[in-house]
Amino acid sequence: MFDRSSDLEIIGLDGIPEVRPGDDLVGLITGALERRGLLLQGGEIVVVTHKIVSKAEGRLVRLSEIEPSPFARRLADAWGRDARHVEVILRESARIVRMDRGLIISETRHGFVCANAGVDASNVDGQEVLCLQPIDPDASAARIREGLRARLGITVGVIISDSFGRAWRNGVINVAIGLAGLAPFADYRGHRDPNGYELRASVLAVADELAAAAELVMGKLARRPVAVIRGFQLTGTPGTARDLVMDPTRDLFR
Amino acid sequence: MFDRSSDLEIIGLDGIPEVRPGDDLVGLITGALERRGLLLQGGEIVVVTHKIVSKAEGRLVRLSEIEPSPFARRLADAWGRDARHVEVILRESARIVRMDRGLIISETRHGFVCANAGVDASNVDGQEVLCLQPIDPDASAARIREGLRARLGITVGVIISDSFGRAWRNGVINVAIGLAGLAPFADYRGHRDPNGYELRASVLAVADELAAAAELVMGKLARRPVAVIRGFQLTGTPGTARDLVMDPTRDLFR
Repeated sequence: MFDRSSDLEIIGLDGIPEVRPGDDLVGLITGALERRGLLLQGGEIVVVTHKIVSKAEGRLVRLSEIEPSPFARRLADAWGRDARHVEVILRESARIVRMDRGLIISETRHGFVCANAGVDASNVDGQEVLCLQPIDPDASAARIREGLRARLGITVGVIISDSFGRAWRNGVINVAIGLAGLAPFADYRGHRDPNGYELRASVLAVADELAAAAELVMGKLARRPVAVIRGFQLTGTPGTARDLVMDPTRDLFR
Repeated sequence: MFDRSSDLEIIGLDGIPEVRPGDDLVGLITGALERRGLLLQGGEIVVVTHKIVSKAEGRLVRLSEIEPSPFARRLADAWGRDARHVEVILRESARIVRMDRGLIISETRHGFVCANAGVDASNVDGQEVLCLQPIDPDASAARIREGLRARLGITVGVIISDSFGRAWRNGVINVAIGLAGLAPFADYRGHRDPNGYELRASVLAVADELAAAAELVMGKLARRPVAVIRGFQLTGTPGTARDLVMDPTRDLFR
């Protein structure tokens, strides 16, 4: 169950155009695969940045349409931020975990803890918009997986990724916010390592590691929002990205 | 400066034997490269799990040699843990960040925040030992890099990795605790994304993403403590893993 291939390939897909609400993501992905001459195979993993998923699903807000609340105005004034942006972050937050020095660390409705409730600023047709996380990223991943199965006749794992900050460490890294067809963890507890030592606490969040690995070919400046990971054995019971959210009763930092 | 290759290869090296204090890690790595028939090239990245670095550097403690303090005994009694193990964790901690429900989240002398101050239990010759983090993982990385340059005549990036838990998310992932010859971050601030939007907060911790990617070929059960990453462009000013540690004055969770 824990066989790991010694070789992994990560292939970023170029040529996916600017995504608009209603666009057929699966068609855009299969088109990019064809142009690249890449034959996606069963058991491979497709990592998709949440931004194109959110755009396809219409999870965009024009700043000009937002009426900030008095609370959002007050925070924005204190921190020199745009009150409409703060308003959208508050609307997307189930709970504020920390609010300090102009930073808002929120818990989203999905349970993810991240800066600005995962709300990203971007441009669409030259106008500033805010891009929200998908309503249900696990369902988004499942739809992409189903679409790829319907069109290509193969079954892959799908990860929707987003870049999150971390406590204690500088910089953001990609993590999985949506999953379909793969196990979020490799759970080694009870197994013995090559030295015969029984592992007690080793639960690896492989879905997050796969998301992080995919970011390495994506970057932020190339338009390369999808990556294929080839060579990782899909083992274990498929789960959801919600499984990656630590139960608040166990969490010492929430 | 931010060109990202669209293709990345991650190759785990098999056949590295159990490492003992004083062993020549660079020799073990070049031996494994040869057996695999892999020609390491300049600009590639070598990721080494800290465990073999710690073992080679003699950062091992036999439980039988530890005399626990009264404080360690009290904690261990309350949580049903081994008092000698708790004692070593306390000795390796610069500060305790959280201590609850049998968990000790420490800040190490390097500034890393992680469970058990990075102290791992393992077996050596069938006897239980504790494996501490290297004294200076950046220096360990630099020595490996220098050794590979001396023997192979090429300059690579080196990452020493460890698996850390995270706030808010289940499971551990590999991060960089030592670096040589590569930049810890890709800092996109001030650049424009493909939609013309000026990026304001995008600082990607690529060294951590590289460490996470390497874990995917390592696993815990195969003896595969080294991986080569091929295709990632080494750009930016080289830094240290200490750069990845968030300044306590900026950290909302320390």
